[in-house]
Amino acid sequence: MRALLLLPLLTFGAYADAAPKNVIYMIGDGMGPAYLTAYRYYQHQLAESQQQTSLPIANTIFDDLLTGMASTYPDDDTLVTDSAASATALATGVKSFNGAISVNRQHIPIGTMMQLAKQLGKANGIVASSQVNHATPAAFVSHNVSRRNYNAIADMYFDYRINGKPVADVILGGGTDYFVRDDRNLITEFKKEGYQYADSWQQLSTLSQKPAIALLDKTGLPAALNSKQPQQLAILTTKALELLAPAEKGFVLMIEGSQIDWCGHDNDIACAMAEMHDFAQAVAVAKAYVDANPDTLLIITADHETGGMSLGADGKYLWLPEVIQGVTATGRKIADELNAASTDEAALSRWLALTNITLTPEEQQQLLAQRGKEQQALRDVAVKLVAKYSYTGWTSSGHTAADVPIMAYGKNSTDFHGFMDNTAIAKQLIRYISTTQP
Amino acid sequence: MRALLLLPLLTFGAYADAAPKNVIYMIGDGMGPAYLTAYRYYQHQLAESQQQTSLPIANTIFDDLLTGMASTYPDDDTLVTDSAASATALATGVKSFNGAISVNRQHIPIGTMMQLAKQLGKANGIVASSQVNHATPAAFVSHNVSRRNYNAIADMYFDYRINGKPVADVILGGGTDYFVRDDRNLITEFKKEGYQYADSWQQLSTLSQKPAIALLDKTGLPAALNSKQPQQLAILTTKALELLAPAEKGFVLMIEGSQIDWCGHDNDIACAMAEMHDFAQAVAVAKAYVDANPDTLLIITADHETGGMSLGADGKYLWLPEVIQGVTATGRKIADELNAASTDEAALSRWLALTNITLTPEEQQQLLAQRGKEQQALRDVAVKLVAKYSYTGWTSSGHTAADVPIMAYGKNSTDFHGFMDNTAIAKQLIRYISTTQP
Repeated sequence: MRALLLLPLLTFGAYADAAPKNVIYMIGDGMGPAYLTAYRYYQHQLAESQQQTSLPIANTIFDDLLTGMASTYPDDDTLVTDSAASATALATGVKSFNGAISVNRQHIPIGTMMQLAKQLGKANGIVASSQVNHATPAAFVSHNVSRRNYNAIADMYFDYRINGKPVADVILGGGTDYFVRDDRNLITEFKKEGYQYADSWQQLSTLSQKPAIALLDKTGLPAALNSKQPQQLAILTTKALELLAPAEKGFVLMIEGSQIDWCGHDNDIACAMAEMHDFAQAVAVAKAYVDANPDTLLIITADHETGGMSLGADGKYLWLPEVIQGVTATGRKIADELNAASTDEAALSRWLALTNITLTPEEQQQLLAQRGKEQQALRDVAVKLVAKYSYTGWTSSGHTAADVPIMAYGKNSTDFHGFMDNTAIAKQLIRYISTTQP
Repeated sequence: MRALLLLPLLTFGAYADAAPKNVIYMIGDGMGPAYLTAYRYYQHQLAESQQQTSLPIANTIFDDLLTGMASTYPDDDTLVTDSAASATALATGVKSFNGAISVNRQHIPIGTMMQLAKQLGKANGIVASSQVNHATPAAFVSHNVSRRNYNAIADMYFDYRINGKPVADVILGGGTDYFVRDDRNLITEFKKEGYQYADSWQQLSTLSQKPAIALLDKTGLPAALNSKQPQQLAILTTKALELLAPAEKGFVLMIEGSQIDWCGHDNDIACAMAEMHDFAQAVAVAKAYVDANPDTLLIITADHETGGMSLGADGKYLWLPEVIQGVTATGRKIADELNAASTDEAALSRWLALTNITLTPEEQQQLLAQRGKEQQALRDVAVKLVAKYSYTGWTSSGHTAADVPIMAYGKNSTDFHGFMDNTAIAKQLIRYISTTQP
């Protein structure tokens, strides 16, 4: 499979000098506008409880960088996008149908900005907290009519060639399930091609130059709230920048905070806030890189909103981040632990230890009634109780059509002010990349 | 009652030249970010159905003017503001408690930008689609420890004096219930003071110069979706600008799209979209004024989000504005008409005529079961059915803490880019107003 529609190599004579050398493109999957608001107050609550004093509400790094909002609708019979269609828009500047990995409605591949960068001799990389062949990163590197064809997408990471090489120079995230399979070991093939490889956080530091690939889990990385490894995405971002920085013609790096969306699908606010924090720490690393390398542009946006999340619910003029900060595990982990408890009493004690929420007898019964069934049933009760006590509203287990934030910093960041469609963000970045002639 | 804390008359020597002569400050009450997204797709759907053809999705006037986002939290034991506390923040630059009309937590009045304008010899006006003494306009003109003290607030519109005159030069909206009372007729008093007065849309055109007051309904104006008078807020905005434009030292005009919030409280999406359209038409009038008078600044924002509204719900990747466009009355009016119908059959036929939604037998029974009870019970079923068929999500009958959009246009509009607190918007406007010395 070959991209039939390679992006035109636009030439912008006078423009070339003004284009940034490097682009860092960060995508908070599912990070609708309310997630930014929630994260601000969650951080404020944390600061107050750590310092044991009343403090003014401070800006987050997202607040400091906010420049506009973007629409996300797909080219489909709906206004609500999935992550594949929106990643296609963000990677190619062209809208497509839900499920599409950088192919158009006629199933013809659309050239991506990473492929263009490679074509033009720029370095590039993808970082994700999901499996690296999940919808968002996949749309930057590969083409498929369905995001669900994980193995075919992983194969294309190796098989699809530009100037004789795989598209991505740096690939960091999870996904050994798809890259080391019974029918094919892509890692062996990547190594033969000269890629350095790491499969653990310890080994990550051994990656010394591109091309390089690190797959640190079978599928996605552990949820930030459950993980023993702090700053997962910030560490991967630091490593990716270290590997890409020497590139003579500059680089394009896409970093996805993948699991904000997964928490949203679960309607799990504590999970979502931990992922927002993991993403924010990665943003801080990227921003510091721009400060040290002012020829770099940092763009941050989201592919869509997930869950219809609101701060306040059920007619109450309250939202309580202090409740969320008491919750120290995701709904999935809480459900697993409550299911694993030997008695109902042990389960309730585990609930209290993991959430710090004292339930009424009726709520205890609601929870216990789902023990021993499917994880999802128990998880649903658990996250509903956290939502109730924190006054977090949710309207859906899926996505919504809400506009998403745009943040921009560094060289040419003023090109991303105000309201834009998601394709306009990509088109602008593609114009920059195009100005570097091979 | 006197404002003890008059705003300091800041002097900005070099700054004075740069300040706009006129400020038009528009507040969409309850207009959270999803309302702007929804309005875009609602307008798109309308354009396609009118032109009977597929069209690209076009920017709304809000999209064209968007520059940033604002936080709204009050100075209270909650992060979720009411309209009084946020109006206080937007009118004075100082946060206060929920319910406060430009008084601080110690109940001391805080000087407002309208009072400052009056003090400095600028003209000023307020326009609202609610009663003119409702929370938002009230916080620009008066002071009270509770927004619910409607009569005391109306009294202060006349009794509170700056340079011997009432604060507001132009007052347009609803509210005769509070201004023409058994115990006091404020309209007679305003007339004696030299105010021209109109109490109907027909008479509005007779207002030829400030000071002037028009109260066109007992409380709020009719909901835009039910009103026989199209472009309510645009007409009032045009008149206010006509009356204020001659002011030698410029003017400050606050215009509130008051009832977006009321629709949000009702979880009534058709009602909300009609109010958004009414507000958008007023914004178009204000924008045209800025185009003709480039020494004018137009600022548009919201006081908070209402309802936790989302485009998409219940796990479905859909939002259907075509369903909303079929609904031609508010939930309140639908409930009244269904209650007034002589038979269940007549009620169901009325439902279909007003909503164009074909119900299942079960849904028909849900609706009919609430006939003859309180309006609210029937209204709740009606709006829930519209929400269900349009896939609109709602999490609350109250407000949420979501950040709200900022739009800016005209002179000094670049001062309102990115993320700001709501008080920072007001402080900036107050700086501009302060530069006009009396």
